[in-house]
Parts: sequence; structure tokens; C-alpha cells
Amino acid sequence: MNLGFIGLGAMGRPMALHLIKGGHRMGVWARRAESAAPLVAAGATRHDTPAALAAVSDFVFTMVTASNDFEQVILGEQGLIHGAKPGSVVVDMETISPAVARAVAQQLATSGIDMLDAPVSGGPMGAEQATLSIMAGGKVEVFERVKPLFECMGKTVTRVGDSGAGQITKACNQLALLVAAQGVAEALHLAGRLGADPAKVREVMMGGVAASRVMELFGKRMVERQFDNGIDTRLYHKDLGIVLDLAHEACIAMPAGALVMQQVNALMGQGRGRDDLGALITVLEGMSARD
Amino acid sequence: MNLGFIGLGAMGRPMALHLIKGGHRMGVWARRAESAAPLVAAGATRHDTPAALAAVSDFVFTMVTASNDFEQVILGEQGLIHGAKPGSVVVDMETISPAVARAVAQQLATSGIDMLDAPVSGGPMGAEQATLSIMAGGKVEVFERVKPLFECMGKTVTRVGDSGAGQITKACNQLALLVAAQGVAEALHLAGRLGADPAKVREVMMGGVAASRVMELFGKRMVERQFDNGIDTRLYHKDLGIVLDLAHEACIAMPAGALVMQQVNALMGQGRGRDDLGALITVLEGMSARD
Repeated sequence: MNLGFIGLGAMGRPMALHLIKGGHRMGVWARRAESAAPLVAAGATRHDTPAALAAVSDFVFTMVTASNDFEQVILGEQGLIHGAKPGSVVVDMETISPAVARAVAQQLATSGIDMLDAPVSGGPMGAEQATLSIMAGGKVEVFERVKPLFECMGKTVTRVGDSGAGQITKACNQLALLVAAQGVAEALHLAGRLGADPAKVREVMMGGVAASRVMELFGKRMVERQFDNGIDTRLYHKDLGIVLDLAHEACIAMPAGALVMQQVNALMGQGRGRDDLGALITVLEGMSARD
Repeated sequence: MNLGFIGLGAMGRPMALHLIKGGHRMGVWARRAESAAPLVAAGATRHDTPAALAAVSDFVFTMVTASNDFEQVILGEQGLIHGAKPGSVVVDMETISPAVARAVAQQLATSGIDMLDAPVSGGPMGAEQATLSIMAGGKVEVFERVKPLFECMGKTVTRVGDSGAGQITKACNQLALLVAAQGVAEALHLAGRLGADPAKVREVMMGGVAASRVMELFGKRMVERQFDNGIDTRLYHKDLGIVLDLAHEACIAMPAGALVMQQVNALMGQGRGRDDLGALITVLEGMSARD
């Protein structure tokens, strides 16, 4: 099978490498040669444009950053749509707006190209270990064709519904995750300010009903004041923007989501978009600063 | 060892039964004979007053509801303090204010009685299965004496610090839990309103970084619309009151905790204090109601 991959960052690179390990021929497109280098070293071919890559691929996966990047790579001047073969499949794995996913899928369909929206949860660690949770939206038959490829990259692979449903599920996931992270930040901040040992309090909480992956991962970084090796907060900022746009458009009250956005906005406004989300605790510390 | 137990509800009853199974002689005090009956059937002796129970006990555990109930049982007219032997230990296992725990411990100390504050996480299921997470505050040597008894009731038993530290840790735990529950409610509400299947969305979220015990337990009840067999929301309402009092007194900003309190207030105001916390999703549904 000829595969293509666009978007070779902290997530895309290990995901593409797992597909190569799965025994597939891989083509890539990247603006900068450095981004493509680890893939080329593993046997992938670098193409000059998304369209050129699409021309030789049965399936093209994208893991770029935001809705705009995705639209550009697919529909732009040298976009994938201008080269892709009818019957080929585009798989959008970044987190974008469900509306953009649906609109692009419809446009691709007019050229006979299928699309799945299939964002992931699990972060760079999940990508490295091929333990991602993959939530796909699109036609059943297209999903079944892509499923063995998803299984090279993830542990939990689920078709959640039609086009757009993957992105809706991802939006829900990010909302639950971000609100939980704010809860952990407030709990550990309270612990510290009341003279308890946040490390011990976190450990105890991990033994009870408050236990969560968020407590495990982000809580640990909050306790260790280690904010430089996780997923960039700017990505959560983008994702939460998608959530609140959905809520706004459909007039759905989302009180805690909106509140957490303000905390994330504060962090972004401090120029800390490349910090891990664990840095949410520092926003609370700033609010309750003593001296 | 002669043990005593006061507060034989959904939590206290199975906890006391586990202590009896551990091979200890048990005395109980309960206002109503029905509450004491399952314990008496298991071999416990019922006493007429807390003071009378304390007079024959080396360790007395309390699992009543709120700070007031605890103070009454300990310091009231027929309270435990009027019968307890010097060198005996009172163990407060309900969730109360850390300030009350500390004040009562000081008062007991003047009569030569030791006290631990040792609230739990895990709910009635954890109590039944003896898998509670127990977080204790108090003197090291007193904790070491009580530890084997805690181990009859719980899986994770941790001394978190001095008097009051157990209750501070529990407050942090409830804060993280309640904020996470609001996040799950918003995520599942969003899913449903955008036409996704909340059951499937929850299942997928359980496979990624948003996975949590709260998602597992309360998310399930939200999906199944099953709000009648969990822990009463009125208890979380009480606990969150303790959290926000702590924040208020120490001037610690607690934005998400405060927001969730309003959602819980709404639920309480609808007369739904006996519903499970999963009912938080219905508050969102009420806010975004379409007739």
C-alpha cells in the first residue's frame, strides 16, 4: 500500500514511522527538509508538493496544526486535491473544527476522494508507543479500509459516527481534559497554600475517586514544576477555541469550559504558549500572589 | 482490641463490619435501633450513649455526616469526651472542616484522648469492598497504632501530616473530583447536543488522556440517566462548602470550584440533593433547554 504523511512534528513523526514499520511504502511532504529527514532515513520518499505526494498515494494522513493549515494542505494552490487519485483516502488526524472537516470532506467527495476525520488522544507519548486513542468519523466502508493502518498507530480505534463525528468527539475529550486539569490545578494549589505537601496529596488522590490520567500526567508536572516537556498549551488554547465556537454556534451553555478558557488565555497572554498545561497552576498562584 | 463505631450509614456500616471481620470486639452507638441492627447481628454491642460506648473502647471511629454532627457526638451532653479513657483514640472518618477537626482534637487532648482526622475516598462501593483510600492527619505514633485497623477498611492508607491534614487532603480531593465531574457533564452534554452518541464518546474518552474514575463512574450514570444509586449530591454540596470556606478564609482564588458550587446549588435548589452527582448534566440541560 502506498501511504503519504503530511505534518511530521512531535505527533506525526512517530505515527508515520509506525506506519513504515507496519510494512508500508511511505511518501512525505514537508516544507523543511529537516522535518522530512527522520522519515527519509527510515525509507520514505520526499515529494515537492502535497499534490505530487497525493498522486502516488492510496491513503494520505495529515497531522498539521490547525484548521487553516489543513485547508491549505488539502485545498491550497499545490494542495492534495489537485493530485489525488479518485478512490484514494485523506485522513485528517489533527484536531480541527468539525465544520471544516465536513466541508473539506464534501469538497474532496466531488473529486471522488474519500475522507475520514480521525483525531487522536494520547499526546507524543501515545504517538511514540503507538497507544493513541483514535476517534474516527466518516463512512463505515472507508473506516474499515483504514482501520489496519490506524492499528499501527493506536490502541483504541473507534468509528464514532459520520463525517465530523471524530472531531466532535475530540472536542468533547479536550473539554473534559481541560476542565479536569483546572480542577487538579485548584486542588494542588489549595493543598500547597494550606500547608499540605502537594506531592503527597496528589499521591493520595490517585488512590481514590479523583484519580485520573490528568492527575497522573499534569498533576505530576504541577508538583514537580516541570512545564517544558509536555504538549504546548497553545494547542489546547486552539482546541478549546473549537469547543467554545461549537457551544456558541449551537447556543449550548458551557460554563466551566468558558472559565478554563480564561485561565488558558491568561497563560497565553503571559507568552507561555509553549509551556505544558500543568502551568495552569501558576495562573492561580498569580491570582493569589502574596508579598 | 475494643473498638467503637458511631455513624452506621451507607459508608459506616460496611466499614464497621470489616473491623468485626478483622477479629475485633465492636461496640456501636446509634440513635435508631434499625441502624445498629446489622452490626448487632454481626456480634456488636449497642450502647446507650456515645459516652457509654467510649468508656469501654480503645478506639472509637466516627462516620457521621457533617461538622455539627461530629461535634455533637464528641462534645455534646452525652458525648464521647465524657466517657472516653485517657490514652484512647478517636478517629474522625467523615468529611468535616479541617478547623473543626483541629479544634476537637485539641479539646480531646486536654482529657488525654488522641484523635486522628482520617476521611476517605471511594464511596459506598469502596467501603463495601474495603478498598477505600484513607488520608490521615495526626501524630505519627497514633497513626501507627490505628494503621492495622485502617487496613481492614482501605487499600491506600496514608498519613498526610499533622492534625487537620487529612481533612485538607480530602477537601482537595473533593475539589478535583467535583470540577472533573462538571467537565465530564459538559463534554457529554456537548456530545449529545451535537448529535454524537454520548455512550460512544464516553467510551472513546476512557481510552485517552481524559480517562478518569469520574468519567468511569459518574460519566456512566450521566449516559445511562441513572441518578438514584450513587452518593447523595447533598454530601458533595457540604464538602464543596468546606472547600470554598477554606478558600475564602485564606483568600485563595478558586474559580472553577466556585463555578461548580453554583451548579450544585442549582441541583440542590431543585430538591435533588439525594440524586447522584451525575445529575450535574441535567443542570446544563436545563440551562440549554429546547422545549
